[in-house]
Amino acid sequence: MSDPVVTMEKIVNLCKRRGFVFQSSEIYGGLNSCYDYGPLGVELKRNVKEAWWRDTVTTRPDVVGVDCSILMHPRVWEASGHVASFSDPMVDCKLCKGRFRADHIDQLRCPKQPSKKPGECDGELTEPRSFNLMFKTHMGPVEDSGAAIYLRPETAQGIFVNFVNVVNSARMKPPFGIAQMGKSFRNEITPGNFLFRTREFEQMELEFFVPPGSDDGWYAYWQQRRMQWYTDYGIKADRLRLRAHASDELAHYAKGCADVEYQFPIGWQELEGIANRTDYDLKQHIEYSGKDLSFFDEQSKERFVPYVIEPSAGADRGTLAFLVDSYDEDGPDNDRRAVLRLHPALAPVKLAIFPLMKRDGLGEKAMEIADSLRAHFAVAYDQSGSIGRRYRRQDEIGTPLGVTVDYDTMKDGTVTLRDRDTMAQERVPIDSLYEIVRAKVAPPVNRAALRPPA
Amino acid sequence: MSDPVVTMEKIVNLCKRRGFVFQSSEIYGGLNSCYDYGPLGVELKRNVKEAWWRDTVTTRPDVVGVDCSILMHPRVWEASGHVASFSDPMVDCKLCKGRFRADHIDQLRCPKQPSKKPGECDGELTEPRSFNLMFKTHMGPVEDSGAAIYLRPETAQGIFVNFVNVVNSARMKPPFGIAQMGKSFRNEITPGNFLFRTREFEQMELEFFVPPGSDDGWYAYWQQRRMQWYTDYGIKADRLRLRAHASDELAHYAKGCADVEYQFPIGWQELEGIANRTDYDLKQHIEYSGKDLSFFDEQSKERFVPYVIEPSAGADRGTLAFLVDSYDEDGPDNDRRAVLRLHPALAPVKLAIFPLMKRDGLGEKAMEIADSLRAHFAVAYDQSGSIGRRYRRQDEIGTPLGVTVDYDTMKDGTVTLRDRDTMAQERVPIDSLYEIVRAKVAPPVNRAALRPPA
Repeated sequence: MSDPVVTMEKIVNLCKRRGFVFQSSEIYGGLNSCYDYGPLGVELKRNVKEAWWRDTVTTRPDVVGVDCSILMHPRVWEASGHVASFSDPMVDCKLCKGRFRADHIDQLRCPKQPSKKPGECDGELTEPRSFNLMFKTHMGPVEDSGAAIYLRPETAQGIFVNFVNVVNSARMKPPFGIAQMGKSFRNEITPGNFLFRTREFEQMELEFFVPPGSDDGWYAYWQQRRMQWYTDYGIKADRLRLRAHASDELAHYAKGCADVEYQFPIGWQELEGIANRTDYDLKQHIEYSGKDLSFFDEQSKERFVPYVIEPSAGADRGTLAFLVDSYDEDGPDNDRRAVLRLHPALAPVKLAIFPLMKRDGLGEKAMEIADSLRAHFAVAYDQSGSIGRRYRRQDEIGTPLGVTVDYDTMKDGTVTLRDRDTMAQERVPIDSLYEIVRAKVAPPVNRAALRPPA
Repeated sequence: MSDPVVTMEKIVNLCKRRGFVFQSSEIYGGLNSCYDYGPLGVELKRNVKEAWWRDTVTTRPDVVGVDCSILMHPRVWEASGHVASFSDPMVDCKLCKGRFRADHIDQLRCPKQPSKKPGECDGELTEPRSFNLMFKTHMGPVEDSGAAIYLRPETAQGIFVNFVNVVNSARMKPPFGIAQMGKSFRNEITPGNFLFRTREFEQMELEFFVPPGSDDGWYAYWQQRRMQWYTDYGIKADRLRLRAHASDELAHYAKGCADVEYQFPIGWQELEGIANRTDYDLKQHIEYSGKDLSFFDEQSKERFVPYVIEPSAGADRGTLAFLVDSYDEDGPDNDRRAVLRLHPALAPVKLAIFPLMKRDGLGEKAMEIADSLRAHFAVAYDQSGSIGRRYRRQDEIGTPLGVTVDYDTMKDGTVTLRDRDTMAQERVPIDSLYEIVRAKVAPPVNRAALRPPA
């Protein structure tokens, strides 16, 4: 990582200390790779998801959303290919009983002898076996094989099986998209790196259905569009890259795939994959369900099975990237501050309000201002410690604006407004706060985004 | 049901036809009791959840949110009592192999002879057996009992195990609350009634921690507050009631419990339970984890384990109640219309825009208006069919405002604005639309809600 200011350790510590992210079930020793979002984290992640939904669904006339159940009919996963081949090769160490991904052995360490790789210690490894990554459970009050179902390993299939329902009810015609956000589950053999690779995770997926032949243009469009989304919301362009898969990396059904990668302190890692899935998924479901999932174009009188461009992003990875990317430290050594330079639309708290003193009515006045703005924005009120210390607390969680109520406020109805990034202060009337904050936290507008590919 | 206008059948049909709710995995014959929200349903449910979060979390200084993982450490469910006793008594029919809740036999029918109850047909029932309602799965790449975990049957426990993390990171002190929305799973023996009782469902739960002794006041406060939320968002007061549990209905740890019930076409049913859970949950986790989960009040120098008031609502049931309650039909027999009189803040589409004709630039003008407002509101554009028919389509999905662009628009920049409920039409300037819509869809403000109990 070129910038040594931010480390994963600093981010993990900040997340725990300020209430962004806790380990799941921590009082019971934690549950491996599962995390809980705390009071600030839940708002940050809500804002990230809202920014995606806004950009992908509500501001577009050509995309609608769905929200499908996590439990789906088991035939869905036969048709999608997950039952047969959603698996990783796994080896066991006969000595220490450790279990490892066979294709990751080179990057792994023996749990007993951390200086050595598994298999290069005293232990002998078994032959690789295939391990299916879907979580299995049973529905209905009986554990027989007929009732076995899976937790979805991706949200995409819920979209494909509803293709005709959406076309008919929402009167959409290709090119158009169906988007979904929600939890998916993969029983990873080796999860890790905090929020980056977890067994339970949240996806933000779009399946964009296009007439065959127009797929290359839309594939290029969505690559550009999705890169733009991250930079619109503040991700530094030099930490972001688009990496096209080599032909031997492609899934057998994919015509093309490119990853949006971010330079985490742990290296370049995938935030999102954008794939041209062709007509593979709909054709699989046509075959397995026996239903006609083709589209008939009333104008051209043509019937076709649409091609699909799929931008598939991780909400937790995205949230982690926004945290890492916005983390900064500045100031002289004896007055160093940590600051999250989050886009104001993503910041969990928009405005903090401080009375200079609690006494002389300043506390009540500050609380009155906080109460009046709380109906519109996430507002914090803090009356303890020095003003400087209170600013620092808000800088560290990314609050873009701070307001101080002092003795002049009681006389002339003005307050001191302080900017998180520039630390500049100005005097503004209380009455102007609503409009100032509203303008500051407005989401980026990118109208050029809607131009379809040539 | 006193009002015969609305039936479950009409609601289910409307939901399928217009894209509110589809059966999960429908092309594979469906998955029992699982549903998918379509393009309109996902927006309606998002708005219901947003209304709850806004009322319960963001507009209150005394409540913060969390978002915990669905997979939790198995010890959590031992401490909570779910492993030992979260079960229903179940009987099997030896003849037809049907499986029934023993305590519901009186309301059930034999699947082979629907005129008879199970056990009163030719079949013989087994003795009741206890059936645990938690979905079980296995984490990590091995199915041994050590790795067995459960899908959470409620979101509440994620809050209790994070109590200390939240107190420390968010600097909260009782009385204060922690809220969570998210999916929970219960392997019900007999789910049913559309969205009402499903095995996968979404909860909106608040655990409000209070000093012992103040719990009765806060219990009364939250009953009043939660009833108010439903009526603030338009539920008819005469279809809503609060039913206090009799002492023999109470869970052994509860000091009191009351259900918010709604008069569905299937009868009075629970939307939400409000319970005084005392200090039971925190004390269980203190015992099972060995951790100190008490609170030390710096001011009074007292240490105590807080009591908990829990309003626990169903997001899917709530969504269904808003659909049912808002459904109406009016007009003469030869021009009958169906209309969802949803609160504008909940309506999935806020504004529909129609060109009177497609030609003469009217289509382009209407589309231009739609595009300019889409950055702020969910906007529909419809150019097909008569204006009257287009209004009807929007009435049926609850769109509060409709705008028609006609030849006068091209001359004087005004449009016809039509109100869903009154069907009144008025002429307004295009420039005024943003403010008109913003005022119309604003959430209800209820500042009295924050007054704590005496």
